Amino acid sequence: MSGKVILVGAGPGDPGLLTVKGQSAIKSAEVVVFDRLVSKVIENMIPINAEKIDVGKRASFHPVPQEEINQILVQKALEGKRVVRLKGGDPFLFGRGGEELEALAQKNIEFEVIPGITSAIAVPSYAGIPVTHRDFCSSVHIITGHAKAGKELEIDYEALVRTKGTLVFLMGVASLPKICQGLIEFLK
Amino acid sequence: MSGKVILVGAGPGDPGLLTVKGQSAIKSAEVVVFDRLVSKVIENMIPINAEKIDVGKRASFHPVPQEEINQILVQKALEGKRVVRLKGGDPFLFGRGGEELEALAQKNIEFEVIPGITSAIAVPSYAGIPVTHRDFCSSVHIITGHAKAGKELEIDYEALVRTKGTLVFLMGVASLPKICQGLIEFLK
Repeated sequence: MSGKVILVGAGPGDPGLLTVKGQSAIKSAEVVVFDRLVSKVIENMIPINAEKIDVGKRASFHPVPQEEINQILVQKALEGKRVVRLKGGDPFLFGRGGEELEALAQKNIEFEVIPGITSAIAVPSYAGIPVTHRDFCSSVHIITGHAKAGKELEIDYEALVRTKGTLVFLMGVASLPKICQGLIEFLK
Repeated sequence: MSGKVILVGAGPGDPGLLTVKGQSAIKSAEVVVFDRLVSKVIENMIPINAEKIDVGKRASFHPVPQEEINQILVQKALEGKRVVRLKGGDPFLFGRGGEELEALAQKNIEFEVIPGITSAIAVPSYAGIPVTHRDFCSSVHIITGHAKAGKELEIDYEALVRTKGTLVFLMGVASLPKICQGLIEFLK
């Protein structure tokens, strides 16, 4: 009998921001496949007898390619294991959770998703910035600031400015000057 | 000495999606001020000796106006109480948390924010829809579908279509036909 894969969003770092359900999934895992974005404190919740597989990614440095991560998840589940795929933030917001679920679905492997707190909303919160405010702003837009390898960022800055919403760029440090320039042009 | 107010996001309903930190804040509260969007199971976590204040809102029916909620939070904190303000979803994503914090800051009352899982990302997740996908979509846009009383919705549909991102409308059931019509016009 094949096992099960649970995609768990670990949240932005603070272990207190893990969900109750996410925490109990980690504590009962037989295999945990985790990312660089998962904090050390959360990593330490993994049972000592569980298999820990670090597939940590760094910008421009991918120790384990996505295709291989998908294969690990499939293989461990086919061995009958209870697998937790632990990802920073939320699995489906720039987390490539969709690709992992497709691989599992193709092999008819049971899966479950436990959403996580995304830094896109939590980090502004911790900094005292509400992403929406009844008097000022009625939408929030979360955009990747990181282009695929070898590609240019394709952002319609004019459209973003026209929304009048709060703009949150994730993974945007390297492109920050370009993003600012793009936006300022349409703020005239 | 004045107390403290902790704004807690209760998440989309499933008590397992409450954060670890949010759960422990509720369990050690002396006063809990909560909304209609907070599920019964989470409401039942409130200690029996804590004061429960239901300020539940329904569409077009506001039992307790926002101004009065702000006053309750201020007053209970000034009485020295440990107050939890429990809100559905995330306090700062259409949760009016910003207005409550302003009221507290004006009176120099200590506060803390514990973000919650937002339905804007979690509900698509539970339905198997990743809000972003490396091959298809690199942004997500969360927009209110509910206009202020007596006002029209002000949405730049052309700009939203141009972003090519996933669009999530919250509180949009009443405006659904209008939103669809607005978007379809620019999909030509």
